[in-house]
Amino acid sequence: MSPHHPLDAALHLEPLSEGRWRGHTHEAYANMVGPFGGATAASTLAAVLAHPARQGEPISLTVNFAGPVAPGPFEIETTAVRTNRSTQHWTVLVRQGAEVVVTATAVLATRRQTWSAAEARCPPAPPAENTPRMPALDRVRWTQAYDMRFVEGPLQFDAPPASDQDSTSLAWLRDEPPRALDFCALAGLGDAFFPRVFVKRARWVPIGTVSFTAHFHADAAMLAAVGTRHLLGHARALQYRNGFFDQSAELWSPGGELLAVTHQMVYFKE
Amino acid sequence: MSPHHPLDAALHLEPLSEGRWRGHTHEAYANMVGPFGGATAASTLAAVLAHPARQGEPISLTVNFAGPVAPGPFEIETTAVRTNRSTQHWTVLVRQGAEVVVTATAVLATRRQTWSAAEARCPPAPPAENTPRMPALDRVRWTQAYDMRFVEGPLQFDAPPASDQDSTSLAWLRDEPPRALDFCALAGLGDAFFPRVFVKRARWVPIGTVSFTAHFHADAAMLAAVGTRHLLGHARALQYRNGFFDQSAELWSPGGELLAVTHQMVYFKE
Repeated sequence: MSPHHPLDAALHLEPLSEGRWRGHTHEAYANMVGPFGGATAASTLAAVLAHPARQGEPISLTVNFAGPVAPGPFEIETTAVRTNRSTQHWTVLVRQGAEVVVTATAVLATRRQTWSAAEARCPPAPPAENTPRMPALDRVRWTQAYDMRFVEGPLQFDAPPASDQDSTSLAWLRDEPPRALDFCALAGLGDAFFPRVFVKRARWVPIGTVSFTAHFHADAAMLAAVGTRHLLGHARALQYRNGFFDQSAELWSPGGELLAVTHQMVYFKE
Repeated sequence: MSPHHPLDAALHLEPLSEGRWRGHTHEAYANMVGPFGGATAASTLAAVLAHPARQGEPISLTVNFAGPVAPGPFEIETTAVRTNRSTQHWTVLVRQGAEVVVTATAVLATRRQTWSAAEARCPPAPPAENTPRMPALDRVRWTQAYDMRFVEGPLQFDAPPASDQDSTSLAWLRDEPPRALDFCALAGLGDAFFPRVFVKRARWVPIGTVSFTAHFHADAAMLAAVGTRHLLGHARALQYRNGFFDQSAELWSPGGELLAVTHQMVYFKE
């Protein structure tokens, strides 16, 4: 970990007492209001992984965004509610002052080598090097913290939306500046796709993720093997209905291994 | 609600104090070890929805199975950690004695009518009436509590598995005996698909869901309109790797509306 990388600075946690940590939002991950949700999700996971009682690697992480996170300090409370032989279950609360701003749960596991099989196939894409980088959005600082190269479904604000336009995007993604991949970075990358309603409507719409879940297939060695290279991400929504839409994304290694899948429910105002 | 339906009996909660309830596993939902996870998930949601402070309808539910649930009583503790104008965030713990057996979080919301759009399309299927019902499995009592009619991807134990066999299933599902659909029943139905590894391997494999998430698109009126009819469910896995696989399912109304999507990570031993 380089203390100079903005993600490491954003994930820096000061221990307060066993399982309690103080973090601080980082300007490199500023969103329209408060921090980018992927950075907050990564912080909850970082707090679990930093706990001395931690056992195993992430299998599942759910982060619920209970209220706006104000720029500034926050406190994370992590509790290992149950430790089994091969799995460990965590609950997490993030507070600012007296207010809970995030609830989360995580499941860790010690994996064993077993029969394994992939059903989904990595979608074909030209190499990241041959795909142009999307310029960061002026008004959204956190977009500067990712290198995003869209193969399909770019953001095209103020283009006339086709009535049957879908919201699928396929893109190469990595931290910017480059940083060796780990579980916290992967959680952030899993939320780095733009809200599907922006793609669907071809314009800005007020939104906020209410619940984000990441399911991890990779282990630490697979992430280390990716290093600082791009991941290929594939995102879509199934339905927008009365203020909420779902959004799912698969994250593939450059070698075509499925590393993680993320799912979220997002509030929108339209 | 009919107190005579086994699901209502399984979801019966005796109030202990504000936010604390005593439930009891029900033999109609018995699994190989302990209760069917979908019944446990439905109980956590039932406890949230029964709370006097409850505001809105479910948007998101995550249930983590921290340890085996023994047949017998359990205690559910629900906490509304944050209530906003239109959303409400809950944490839930289920205990048996001193042990936490389940952690859960739920997000409720009061929806407003907005622009809405479907991207996913309901897969074509012959009507439920023309699809034969799968016999319940002798050794798994809870399978008697559902009427399942497979259009694609039935369970075929001890058939020679094709090496490239996928684990997609398409099936009509409803409670058995028929029961008017509500959010708790929908959560249970979202977990009623057999573990994908059974379909993939064409045989029994020891498994256990570690984390289950349901994202709800339907409101109560849509569920009431379904009534006691079958839902069309579409389930698949993306990858099996070193002891865990993912499993997702969409649940469609007979009229082709997407009601909910569920995602889980499942432990397997193979």
